[in-house]
Amino acid sequence: MTAKRYPLMLCRHCDAKAVINMRQHKLALCGPHYVDWVHKQTARFIDEYGMFAPEDRVLVAVSGGKDSLALWDILLALGYPADGLYIGLGIGWGIGHNPDDDTGESEGQGYSDTSYGYIQDFVQARGGDQTLHVVDVAEEFGATIPAAARVTNRGREKPCSLCGLTKRHIMNRVARDGGYDVLATGHNLDDEAAVLLGNTLQWSVDYLARQGPVMPPSHPGLARKVKPLFRFYEREMAAYAIVRGIDYIYEECPFATGATTARYKDMLNNLELSSPGIKLQFYLRFLKAKKVNNLFENAHRTLDLLTCPTCGQPTTNPGECTFCRTWDRVRDRLAPSRT
Amino acid sequence: MTAKRYPLMLCRHCDAKAVINMRQHKLALCGPHYVDWVHKQTARFIDEYGMFAPEDRVLVAVSGGKDSLALWDILLALGYPADGLYIGLGIGWGIGHNPDDDTGESEGQGYSDTSYGYIQDFVQARGGDQTLHVVDVAEEFGATIPAAARVTNRGREKPCSLCGLTKRHIMNRVARDGGYDVLATGHNLDDEAAVLLGNTLQWSVDYLARQGPVMPPSHPGLARKVKPLFRFYEREMAAYAIVRGIDYIYEECPFATGATTARYKDMLNNLELSSPGIKLQFYLRFLKAKKVNNLFENAHRTLDLLTCPTCGQPTTNPGECTFCRTWDRVRDRLAPSRT
Repeated sequence: MTAKRYPLMLCRHCDAKAVINMRQHKLALCGPHYVDWVHKQTARFIDEYGMFAPEDRVLVAVSGGKDSLALWDILLALGYPADGLYIGLGIGWGIGHNPDDDTGESEGQGYSDTSYGYIQDFVQARGGDQTLHVVDVAEEFGATIPAAARVTNRGREKPCSLCGLTKRHIMNRVARDGGYDVLATGHNLDDEAAVLLGNTLQWSVDYLARQGPVMPPSHPGLARKVKPLFRFYEREMAAYAIVRGIDYIYEECPFATGATTARYKDMLNNLELSSPGIKLQFYLRFLKAKKVNNLFENAHRTLDLLTCPTCGQPTTNPGECTFCRTWDRVRDRLAPSRT
Repeated sequence: MTAKRYPLMLCRHCDAKAVINMRQHKLALCGPHYVDWVHKQTARFIDEYGMFAPEDRVLVAVSGGKDSLALWDILLALGYPADGLYIGLGIGWGIGHNPDDDTGESEGQGYSDTSYGYIQDFVQARGGDQTLHVVDVAEEFGATIPAAARVTNRGREKPCSLCGLTKRHIMNRVARDGGYDVLATGHNLDDEAAVLLGNTLQWSVDYLARQGPVMPPSHPGLARKVKPLFRFYEREMAAYAIVRGIDYIYEECPFATGATTARYKDMLNNLELSSPGIKLQFYLRFLKAKKVNNLFENAHRTLDLLTCPTCGQPTTNPGECTFCRTWDRVRDRLAPSRT
C-alpha cells in the first residue's frame, strides 16, 4: 500500500512551507508572511472603510475567542494603543457538560471564567501593561445572564436576547465613560455573511439597511462601531491565532448550539466548497449594491431616539430603556422578600 | 416488533383521507377539495397580481413536465380558452443513458419526443380540440439544440444558454404571430425561489429588479409574461398532476444535472424542513420589499431596445439580434461545403 502524497504547499513569497492556502485569493503563505499579510490587509480595511484614524481612541470588545484576541493583537501590532473590554456573563459549561449543573450558570471554572483566563494570559504575555476594563454582570447588576434570563420573559427559551441587550449596554457605557471614539468587535466574514443571509432570507429591510462594517453612532456620546476583521474567513483568524501563539477558548458558548446562524454558516460553507470565494463575494457585492445602487436607501428609517433618564443611553421608549426596565424586573423577581 | 402507527390525515373540509398536507399553510385536503383549492388559489393569484383578464388570449408554454401541464389544465378548468405551445428541442436521453449516444441528441424516442408524447396524450384526453402550436427546432432552424450547441461557442459546456435563447425567441414569435396577449409558463415556487437565491447571493441588482411573477412586454408586439403557479411548491404541483390523472415526464432534462439552481433548491429544501414556509416567505417578502420599499428602483436600467431587421424581435445590438446571429453561424458551420 502506498500512501497518497500531496505536493508540499509553498509560500508565494519565500518558498518556505505554507501554513495556509486561501483558495479564494489563490494565495498560500508561510507563518511570518501570513502574519504580515493579515496586518497589511487589516490596515487597508481600516483605511478603505473609514473605520478610524491613528489618533482615535479604540476599545476592543474581547470575549476570549480567537477573533477578538486576534483583533486586539493586530491592532496593537499596527501601533494602535487599543484598550480591551471583557464582560463577565457568568455562563457555565451548560446543561449536560456537568451532571450537577442544570442551570447553565457558572460555578467555579465555567465557560465565562475560562474565557477570562485566556484574556488574562494574553495581557500577561504582552507584559501586562494593556488596559483591560472588566465588567462582571452578576456583581454589577445582581445576577448572571443565565439566572437573569430564567426570571424574565426574554429568557423563555435561551438567554441570547438578554445577553445581547446587556452586552450592547455595557459596551456603549464603557466606551462613553472612557472617552473612546471607536468600539471594535471581532466579527469575521463567516459571522457577517451568516447574518446577512438570515436578513436576506427574511428581507428584513431595516436590518439590511444598517448592516455593514462601520456603524456610525446613533446618539451623542456613543462610539462608532466597527468590524475590522469582516473580510477574513473564520479559518483565517484561527490560523492567525495559532501562528501568533494566542491561546483562546475553542468552545462555542454553550447556549449557541443549534442557533439559526449556525445553520446559515453551514449553508454558506457548503457553497464555498464548490465555489471558493462565494461567501466574500456575497458580502462585498451586498456592500457595493448598497453604495452604488442606493439599495435600501428608502428603507432607512430615521428613528426618533430618546434618552433613558436612568442610564442616559438612547432608547425608542418614552421613559426607561429596555435594558433598565428588564434588569429592574430581574432584581425585583430575585429579591429575597419574594421568595 | 410493533410498527409505528401514524394518525390518518383527514381533509379539513370533509373528513375524507387527505392526499396532501401543506405544513406551511397548516392545511390537509382530500383529492377533490385539493383540486378545488388549487383552482381557487390560481384564480386569486391571476387576479391579485394582475396577470390577465378573462378576455385576454393566453398561450401556455408546455414542456411535458408536471408544472406546465398542470398549468394548462388549471387554466382550462378556470374557463380560459388557453392554447398550448410545444417546442421540440431534439434532446436525447443524454450521455450515459444510451451507450451508443455520446451526443445528447435525440434519435428515436428521446427525451424531447417522450415529452411531446405526454402533451399529445393530454390533448387527446381532453377531446383533442385544444390548439397546440408545435415548433420543431431542427426542422425550422436546421439543427437540434445539442447539435447546434456543439458548433457554437455558447455550447462549450452545456447547451442550456443556447436552449434558453432559442426558446425565448420562439415563444415571443408564436405569441406575436398568433395575437396572444399573454404568455404563461409553469414556473413554481421552488424554481422561482432558487433563482432568487442565486440572484441574491450574487446581488445581481438588474436581475433582482426584473424578477417577479409578471413581466410587462419590453417591446411593441411582445406578450406579457406571467407565472401563475409561482406560489405553489413543486410537490404541490406533483400532487395536483397525480390527483388529476395527468401523466407527465418525470425525468429532468439530461443537461440539467448538477446545475447551480439544483444546489440552491437543495439549500432551500433543507431550510424548509426545519422552518416550514420559509421558501414562500423568502419570495413573498422579496416582492413586498420591492413594492413597499421601492427596493431596486434605482437599479432598473431602461434599455434602449432596437428591432432586429431579420426577425423583428427586440435586441440591444445594432443589426441582427443574438438569436439570428447565433443560428446563422450554426447553419454556416454545419453546411456540407465545410465538411
